[in-house]
Amino acid sequence: MSKKLTSRAEDYSKWYNELVVEANLAENSAVRGCMVIKPYGYAIWEKMQAELDRMFKETGHENAYFPIFVPKKLFEAEEKNAEGFAKECAVVTHYRLQNDPDNPGKLRVDPEAKLEEELVVRPTSEAIIWNTYKGWIQSYRDLPLLVNQWANVVRWEMRTRLFLRTAEFLWQEGHTAHATKKEAVAEAEQMNNVYADFAENFMAIPVVQGLKTESERFAGAVETYCIEALMQDGKALQAGTSHFLGQNFAKAFDVKFTSKEGKQDYVWATSWGVSTRLMGALIMTHSDDKGLVLPPNLAPNQVVIVPIYKNEEQQEAITKVVNGIMKDLRSKNITVKFDNRDTLRPGAKFAQHELQGVPLRIAIGARDLENRTVELARRDTLTKEIVNLNGLTEKVEGLMTEIQESLFNKALDYRNNHITKVDTFEEFKTILKEKGGFISAHWDGTPETEEKIKELTKATIRCIPLDGKEEEGKCVLTGKPSNRRVLFAKAY
Amino acid sequence: MSKKLTSRAEDYSKWYNELVVEANLAENSAVRGCMVIKPYGYAIWEKMQAELDRMFKETGHENAYFPIFVPKKLFEAEEKNAEGFAKECAVVTHYRLQNDPDNPGKLRVDPEAKLEEELVVRPTSEAIIWNTYKGWIQSYRDLPLLVNQWANVVRWEMRTRLFLRTAEFLWQEGHTAHATKKEAVAEAEQMNNVYADFAENFMAIPVVQGLKTESERFAGAVETYCIEALMQDGKALQAGTSHFLGQNFAKAFDVKFTSKEGKQDYVWATSWGVSTRLMGALIMTHSDDKGLVLPPNLAPNQVVIVPIYKNEEQQEAITKVVNGIMKDLRSKNITVKFDNRDTLRPGAKFAQHELQGVPLRIAIGARDLENRTVELARRDTLTKEIVNLNGLTEKVEGLMTEIQESLFNKALDYRNNHITKVDTFEEFKTILKEKGGFISAHWDGTPETEEKIKELTKATIRCIPLDGKEEEGKCVLTGKPSNRRVLFAKAY
Repeated sequence: MSKKLTSRAEDYSKWYNELVVEANLAENSAVRGCMVIKPYGYAIWEKMQAELDRMFKETGHENAYFPIFVPKKLFEAEEKNAEGFAKECAVVTHYRLQNDPDNPGKLRVDPEAKLEEELVVRPTSEAIIWNTYKGWIQSYRDLPLLVNQWANVVRWEMRTRLFLRTAEFLWQEGHTAHATKKEAVAEAEQMNNVYADFAENFMAIPVVQGLKTESERFAGAVETYCIEALMQDGKALQAGTSHFLGQNFAKAFDVKFTSKEGKQDYVWATSWGVSTRLMGALIMTHSDDKGLVLPPNLAPNQVVIVPIYKNEEQQEAITKVVNGIMKDLRSKNITVKFDNRDTLRPGAKFAQHELQGVPLRIAIGARDLENRTVELARRDTLTKEIVNLNGLTEKVEGLMTEIQESLFNKALDYRNNHITKVDTFEEFKTILKEKGGFISAHWDGTPETEEKIKELTKATIRCIPLDGKEEEGKCVLTGKPSNRRVLFAKAY
Repeated sequence: MSKKLTSRAEDYSKWYNELVVEANLAENSAVRGCMVIKPYGYAIWEKMQAELDRMFKETGHENAYFPIFVPKKLFEAEEKNAEGFAKECAVVTHYRLQNDPDNPGKLRVDPEAKLEEELVVRPTSEAIIWNTYKGWIQSYRDLPLLVNQWANVVRWEMRTRLFLRTAEFLWQEGHTAHATKKEAVAEAEQMNNVYADFAENFMAIPVVQGLKTESERFAGAVETYCIEALMQDGKALQAGTSHFLGQNFAKAFDVKFTSKEGKQDYVWATSWGVSTRLMGALIMTHSDDKGLVLPPNLAPNQVVIVPIYKNEEQQEAITKVVNGIMKDLRSKNITVKFDNRDTLRPGAKFAQHELQGVPLRIAIGARDLENRTVELARRDTLTKEIVNLNGLTEKVEGLMTEIQESLFNKALDYRNNHITKVDTFEEFKTILKEKGGFISAHWDGTPETEEKIKELTKATIRCIPLDGKEEEGKCVLTGKPSNRRVLFAKAY
């Protein structure tokens, strides 16, 4: 806990890795590319889950659970989806181990327990779910089908980083079926809006809503909506995606329905997901060189109280006051922890809570008792003030809102200051190198140009913003005509 | 929805299978032995999860998440555990598929993407978790470590049944580490108590708490505590287990701590889990020939309201009254659904809600409007009564408690009537055949006798009851001396 973090200016990437481990959020495991999410990190993820789950249910979705395995034959059925994920999937080939005759005490795969058909560990569940939907959908009465799943998925990534890119990650995946194209598109848009709302109003992370270009689209999608956030190092991070899948999966799995008019047609589909990657976005949006900074909505403990005493008598008197404070705060649904450990000095406690991003610290000592005051320390601004016990609850309540808003506004200012309009490729390269952030530029609409720009600069098209305006211009690389700007950035 | 279920008397097993599918709880998937948990079934599971999670947190536990894969070398480390699970584990051997040159459009495992070390899909997580704990535990200050995980696990069972025994299932697994044996034993006992409390007071399922015999113990445990329930067909069902693991895993993974006195010692461990198997216990404890019967605590909808009207005018008037009823019920935290679908007749709705076990149905028609009454129908007793709108909320609130208690008492009566003391093996066989249930008998304490009785009768020792009294007697099979009775039964 006491190790000083590398500063962001010195090495942003190192700072991130150290912070995740030192703040007890997650760590690498014995399994290549897979992480252990530690209790403190998981408690933050649980808060995200609870709020998202509430939002999904409010928009009419129900949860269900589908198998972790996808038989190879089903995996193959939607060609583009299969092609997109084949290169990175874990495959179960056997269902038994046996004693290894050559190595006493060791086990080996039992050659006689080979599966007839290999099972893919789900990298995403469209295949197994649409194969199931075939049995659930016969008529327009069965539609819309609005289902979400909380699950683990596996993608065998070669270069992994805690939360940002891991071989196994946790996520939710919504899979919906509709009678019309219009309804399915509206659902995909609605869920992208839900994600944007969640990111901005719950996580305090400003996002740009947009469409992916063809080459960045989800494998098997007709259109991919996304929310894109900007990290403090000027790199973008895709924080959530929502796909309009057309009838691709319905055709691959032969899912038809009879309309009110008695006509048979394939069903229209969407899928949408966010993952533990959001933890990475959270960390990199708000934190500083002293450690994690958490918006109150996501903090497992919104307030921590540290007592400062020299003897038992003082300790008892402080504890009595603290119990009153806690009762009052809890009555306002503020989560508060009394850090009365006797194994650590106050200074060490301060450092730990700073590192772990507790939004507000209350310190209370003998002199405070006399004066009927406490010391408040805000994690986000690192400012302190002495306040009276009278009115403390209202003060803290107000600060929770203020900190939440202030973090969003700070991130929004940074993001808005890092969207740069450029009209020449020289400028494009200069801005990318010297300032980073999103570059708003014209593009001729071809995958070739997109690929060329990526090759030359490592920047990709993050999205075609939904709120972008029509504007005549020339492609920043080829000079060919374009009628709207897109957002480029280097990305996680 | 309209198919009539096979009756329990006719074929209990068939009744169960039909009920699970017809009530929309779960179904078999395209993956051998794996199930799809459908939204209605999952909503019940979510209620179990929420309550258990609350109970775990109240007893000081935190959630975390560990990888789904266990490298073979770690899997092997605790010998008995490895031996116990080796025969039924799914093994990942490759991390990529490629186009199959012999079958255009098909994929095959890429022979060049073979893992150096195979990965076992977790059948339980002691190995991966204790390998992680090695890094988390150095001193007594790090203890106790009280962690729980909600996860999916895979056991390659050859004979599977929805919820009761599936290749993949959902569960929670608690894994705790302690400084002393006494503390670890107390934790294992505490968590078994939590399970018993949950089963009885939340699920309305009476259970016997006991210890497993050596041959029924968890692989790698020193002692296994369990809760055993009795199904309506006289077969027992193990509903939860809590293991005292001694220092077995600490030794296998070299997890030591320094005590307050500066001494090094291995850590003491427990693990404990319940799974989606509880869904099977729930179904088989309370349901009847008409379908599912749900205790109010677990019902996704505690009350359903069905309107009965002949014209739009009546429909509008009814809707107005129903909106008032719903508002009042919701203010008392009663979940209520207004089934105003115009695609189904009231009779069909009644049948569906009966099949799906909604505890209380309110029907309201034109005459009820005039009389300011509604019709209440209890699912558990299949009784109906006409009640006045005045006081309806209080009436319903009272019924929720009454139904919950009544289901428990009914199950308790059945269970108590099906614990039979026997002192001869002839009697043992007769009771088992003619009455079923638990048989309380003396046993000489040897695995050989236990095995022999199983061979002869298919009955196993479900547990050595914790509240059993010392009593001199003779083993029901061998006549050898015994000092307490144990519970035998055929089991799921």
